[in-house]
Amino acid sequence: MNSSSTLWWDRKTGSICYLDQTLLPNEERIVECRSIRRLAKAIQRLEIRGAPALGVAGAFGVALAASLCRKKTIRPFLKTVAHEAELIRATRPTAINLGWGIDHVLDAIRDARDVTSAQEQALTEAEKIRLEDTACCHAIGEHGSSLLPDPCTVLTHCNAGALACSSWGTALGVIRSAVKAGKQVTVIACETRPLLQGARLTAWELARDGIPVTVITDSMAATFLRTGTIDAVIVGADRITGDAVFNKIGTYMHAVLARYHGIPFYVAAPLSTFDVTGSARDVVIEERGRDEIAIIGSRTFVPPAVPVKNPAFDATPMELVSAIITEQGIIRPPFMMTDLVQGRTK
Amino acid sequence: MNSSSTLWWDRKTGSICYLDQTLLPNEERIVECRSIRRLAKAIQRLEIRGAPALGVAGAFGVALAASLCRKKTIRPFLKTVAHEAELIRATRPTAINLGWGIDHVLDAIRDARDVTSAQEQALTEAEKIRLEDTACCHAIGEHGSSLLPDPCTVLTHCNAGALACSSWGTALGVIRSAVKAGKQVTVIACETRPLLQGARLTAWELARDGIPVTVITDSMAATFLRTGTIDAVIVGADRITGDAVFNKIGTYMHAVLARYHGIPFYVAAPLSTFDVTGSARDVVIEERGRDEIAIIGSRTFVPPAVPVKNPAFDATPMELVSAIITEQGIIRPPFMMTDLVQGRTK
Repeated sequence: MNSSSTLWWDRKTGSICYLDQTLLPNEERIVECRSIRRLAKAIQRLEIRGAPALGVAGAFGVALAASLCRKKTIRPFLKTVAHEAELIRATRPTAINLGWGIDHVLDAIRDARDVTSAQEQALTEAEKIRLEDTACCHAIGEHGSSLLPDPCTVLTHCNAGALACSSWGTALGVIRSAVKAGKQVTVIACETRPLLQGARLTAWELARDGIPVTVITDSMAATFLRTGTIDAVIVGADRITGDAVFNKIGTYMHAVLARYHGIPFYVAAPLSTFDVTGSARDVVIEERGRDEIAIIGSRTFVPPAVPVKNPAFDATPMELVSAIITEQGIIRPPFMMTDLVQGRTK
Repeated sequence: MNSSSTLWWDRKTGSICYLDQTLLPNEERIVECRSIRRLAKAIQRLEIRGAPALGVAGAFGVALAASLCRKKTIRPFLKTVAHEAELIRATRPTAINLGWGIDHVLDAIRDARDVTSAQEQALTEAEKIRLEDTACCHAIGEHGSSLLPDPCTVLTHCNAGALACSSWGTALGVIRSAVKAGKQVTVIACETRPLLQGARLTAWELARDGIPVTVITDSMAATFLRTGTIDAVIVGADRITGDAVFNKIGTYMHAVLARYHGIPFYVAAPLSTFDVTGSARDVVIEERGRDEIAIIGSRTFVPPAVPVKNPAFDATPMELVSAIITEQGIIRPPFMMTDLVQGRTK
């Protein structure tokens, strides 16, 4: 594995390569993906997950569709690629970055003169998005690092790390940048039911980098916040509307608990996550399958007759957010979204 | 299985019989326990769990030790039984009921004239505790039922049901009594990591009784409390000191979230759970093993190099509790513990 990258394009084989996140921490398997159907399955199964990584995967997906398309003339070619792009887009409704990455590459090839140049442009644009994502994460990390005292203990939820991006990470990018700047950072990773991305992915990433991390169940966060050992909560985001932050289920719980205990609650996300004209009430929260709750490993824990609920995300109202850390700087209340559109942060 | 009982003394075989809670909901296996070592293991492994059930198990444990003791004269007999009782008491430090049940039976035989009468008295006293526990649960249920609107949706955590007592339950006893009184009650059961007693036990119990129940992860409670579908949170307790309620890890989270959303937070517990002269700072919170967090079923989810924390309980300060439902009535703020000692409730 490319140690700093978790998702990339392999020019030799013309495939999207990624670390299969469902197998971590027990197995580090690189998948070479060469079809749109396989890519859609990988996104649905969360082999690839995390908002920024989905943006990159969407972009590479359009590039893959373009490279696979056998149409000889540009109009039918673009129609086919756009159709394939919709198959990718339909996999997950909540994270905005997936559609953002897809649309960026579609826009880049819209006026292409021929198939070959469209294929090249699609790949160039997708690569650009991947490199920009990495640059964004480093910029987010540097801005966010200034918010952390030294030494400090940070609580995080789910995985907003290198695995959720193409490298470095957003929430974990802030932690990495703080450590790089010489700060002593200890991390409390909430395991993040149902799919345990905190236990499996965040713990794995940070341990690999030698950053001290301890795993707790999600329900322990309140006690750790109360006993005064946590200096800040930092999470990523899947979509930020004018009025709320959408992120992994459990994020809203942490936001309320952080407010109750007087601890800052930070969101780290690139501007590609922002849906500034959107409103919380219009966002579709993905409801995932029963088995993610009822079955763990190979054992069934919920009686067959009993229903479950499995919303993958929750909405945290903006008034509970202390600051949003973006690649352009730190945005603080009252989070004027019109400023954001113009890229003004402070 | 005796359908209304989950823990009893079998006179024919002279053994403690119980439903092994670690195997639910997949298997309903009754264990016949005939040694103190086996009983201690059963309590440590949570084959028997739940504060009131531990009280009954402690009482039957002393009766079992008495029935097994081969000493012929009363002094050595009592010394041996007391020694065995300490082996049972040492299994779990936080729940007060275990020691309460043990001490009640030890007190009952302290002045016995001979071994045979001591053995008989131990069993009589333990049986009395079991019957009183059932009566307590029904009384708690009836008092608590008055607090629930009709129809209503109640959120609960862990299992404070028939499985946690000898029958009926405390928190679930309130729900059962409300249903029996003709109220329409829907239950949201938090799965309760790490050991999933909510998913495995509460869901199983309520489904068996035909009470509608839906399982969610612990981290979803905040969203359900926010969206206005929950009318009350009801939990059990392992120990109630003058200043805090000790219960399954995650309870404190629910108490803060309930307060934030303006939803009543009720604790249902028999007076045997009260440690009125105790203070939160003196209570030992049991820290359980790594594997309960790191391994689920047969799969490992936390990387080997990463530590975990596993406190089994948390402390909810009394100011977050709306009311405590006991067998003698409902206690409301300011929770005068001196009134409690005198058994005065309103």
